[in-house]
Amino acid sequence: MAAAAPLLPLAVSLGDPAGVGPELFVHAWAQRGEAGLAPFFVAGGSQVLHEAAQGCGLPVPIIAISDPAEAIDAFAHGLPVLGAEGCGWHPGAPDADGAHLALDSLTRAAGLARDGVAGAIVTGPIAKSHLARIGFTQPGQTEFVADACGVAHSDAVMMLAGPSLRTVPLTVHCPLADVPGLISRALIENKARIVARALIRDFGISQPRIAIAGLNPHAGEDGRMGSEDREVIAPAIAALQAEGLAVTGPHPADALFAPHARAGFDVALCMYHDQALIPIKALDFDEGVNVTLGLPIVRTSPDHGTAFAIAGKGLAHPGATIAALRMAGACAARRQGTV
Amino acid sequence: MAAAAPLLPLAVSLGDPAGVGPELFVHAWAQRGEAGLAPFFVAGGSQVLHEAAQGCGLPVPIIAISDPAEAIDAFAHGLPVLGAEGCGWHPGAPDADGAHLALDSLTRAAGLARDGVAGAIVTGPIAKSHLARIGFTQPGQTEFVADACGVAHSDAVMMLAGPSLRTVPLTVHCPLADVPGLISRALIENKARIVARALIRDFGISQPRIAIAGLNPHAGEDGRMGSEDREVIAPAIAALQAEGLAVTGPHPADALFAPHARAGFDVALCMYHDQALIPIKALDFDEGVNVTLGLPIVRTSPDHGTAFAIAGKGLAHPGATIAALRMAGACAARRQGTV
Repeated sequence: MAAAAPLLPLAVSLGDPAGVGPELFVHAWAQRGEAGLAPFFVAGGSQVLHEAAQGCGLPVPIIAISDPAEAIDAFAHGLPVLGAEGCGWHPGAPDADGAHLALDSLTRAAGLARDGVAGAIVTGPIAKSHLARIGFTQPGQTEFVADACGVAHSDAVMMLAGPSLRTVPLTVHCPLADVPGLISRALIENKARIVARALIRDFGISQPRIAIAGLNPHAGEDGRMGSEDREVIAPAIAALQAEGLAVTGPHPADALFAPHARAGFDVALCMYHDQALIPIKALDFDEGVNVTLGLPIVRTSPDHGTAFAIAGKGLAHPGATIAALRMAGACAARRQGTV
Repeated sequence: MAAAAPLLPLAVSLGDPAGVGPELFVHAWAQRGEAGLAPFFVAGGSQVLHEAAQGCGLPVPIIAISDPAEAIDAFAHGLPVLGAEGCGWHPGAPDADGAHLALDSLTRAAGLARDGVAGAIVTGPIAKSHLARIGFTQPGQTEFVADACGVAHSDAVMMLAGPSLRTVPLTVHCPLADVPGLISRALIENKARIVARALIRDFGISQPRIAIAGLNPHAGEDGRMGSEDREVIAPAIAALQAEGLAVTGPHPADALFAPHARAGFDVALCMYHDQALIPIKALDFDEGVNVTLGLPIVRTSPDHGTAFAIAGKGLAHPGATIAALRMAGACAARRQGTV
C-alpha cells in the first residue's frame, strides 16, 4: 500500500491487447508492494490479462469486480478487472477485436475518472492508426481524455516526467518547419499558467520554477540567430514574471538539460517535440511518464508505445508503467487531500 | 605517459587568458599521470600559466622551450610553453591584450600542427565576440583551423564526443527556421563520408555504424509530419548504403539517444545544433570533446566556452580538457602508426 493512498482506486485502460500493456500491468500488480502502488483496477480485458499473467509465469489472480469501490479490497488478492472479458491474448498480432477492446477500455476508464468514482486514469499504450480504423478520431489519448472531460485540446498540456527531469513540449506532432510560426506569446503564457497551477495542485510544489527553452541555437544570441527568442519568447517570460510566476529564460536549449542546470528548475517548457523528448528519453528512458495537466481528472501514462515487436517476449520493462501508476496515485491523493 | 603516445607532442592554444583555459591546462598537466596524457605544450602565455598555477595552488613549473621537440622531455618536469610570455592573469576580466594573446596562440599552434612539428592541436576556449574586434573573421575556431589547413569550411566537420555518445550536427549556427531548407542530400552524403573516413583513420573503428536522425517528430511518420525525412534524408541514406557504408535511419530523434539505442551506433548525424548538443550535454556535460573531422591535422577542444564568470574561482571542471587532450593523443598516435 502506498504511503499516501488516494481514497478512490485508479482506473487503468488496457491499451492495445496485442501490445505490451497487458503484461506490464500484470508485472506492476506483482510489484505493488515494493513499488508502493495505490489500488488500481483495469477496465475490461480479463481474459487477455489472465493469459498474459500465465505467459509471463506470474501468479497473478484476475478478480472480476462489478463496481470500482470493490477494487480497494480486491487489490490485495489479485488484479481487479471491471467489465468486459474481451478477446484472448495474441501479443504482437493486433486486430480489429483488440482495437475495439482498447477503445472500450479507454472510454470506460476515462468516464469513471470523470464521474469521480475512480481517482485517476492511467492509460496503456494504443496504436493510433489501428484505432483510427474503428472510429477513434483524436490525434492521441491526451485529446481523447480532454474531450471526455469537456476541456479544449489547447488547455490539455502534455508533460513528460522522469526521475531526472520534467519537460513540456509546447508544440508536438507537426513538421519542424511549422514550429517557428506556431510559437506565440499566447501559447507560451497559456501553457505556462496551466503548468504552474498543476505543479502546485498535483505535485505539491508551492512555487514551481519554470525554465523556458529558446527556439534557436544559443537562444538566438540576442537576435543574431533567429528573432523568435527575443521577440516572442522573452516578452512572454516577462509577462509571466509580472504575474508573479517563477519563470526564467529563454535558456540555450543545449545546456538546459546538463546536470547542474536541471537542478535549477522544476519543469522545462520546450518549443518542439524533440527538444522536450530527447533529454527525457536519453536520461529516463525506462521510467518516463506522460502526464496530462489542466484536466479536471488526473491522467498519466507510461511514455512508450505498444512495442508490438517485443510484446509477449518478456522484454518490456515495467519501469514506466510502475512510475505512471505511482505518480497517478500521488497526484490523486493530493487532490483528495489525503496527503 | 599514455599507453599509446604519439611521436610528436600536442600543441595547445591557450584560449582567452581571462577564461577558464589557463587553469584547466594547468590542472590537466598536474593530472597527466593518472589521466594517461601524451606530452603537450602550450603555444605562448607563460606568465598567465605561471600565475594560474599559483592561483590554483598547484605546484606546476612552467618550462620555456624553444622548439616543439623539447616538449617531450620537458613534459615530465613541468608544463612546457613555447613562445611569447604574454600578459598577466586577470581571470574574468577579458581585454584586448588577452584577445591578441589568444589569437597569437591559436595561430601558432595551428601552424605547428599543419607543418607536422606538433602531433595535433587542442584549442582552449575563446570568446568570438572579443576576437572579432581584433580581426578574427571566422565564425569559430573550427573554421579558423580549416582555413589554416586550406580545407573548405564545408569539409571540416564538427563532432561532439563523450563517454556515452558521439554526435555530428549537420547544420550549426543558423535560425531553426532555416534548417529544413539547408538539409540536402549533398550535405548529408558529404558529411557522412567524411565522418566515416575519420572514424576509421583516427578512431580505429573499422566499419563505423552511422545513425542518421530524422528532422521531424517520429522522423516524419512516413510523410504525415513533414516531407524531408522521406524525400531528402532517406534517399541520402540509400545512396550511402549503396556505397557500402553502415548507415541507418532516418531514426526518430527522440528515442535515438536512449541507452539501448545508443549501443547500436558509433556516431549519430543530427540535422541541427540542439538535436546534436542536447543529448551530449545532458549525458556527458563535464567530459564533452569537440573534434574537427576532415582535416589534414588532428584537432580537438573541450566542448565548453570561456566561462568568464567562474574563471579563477576553482570551480571549472577539468574533465572536458583532459578528455580533449587524451583524445588528441590517441588520434595522433593512430595517424603516426604508433598504435
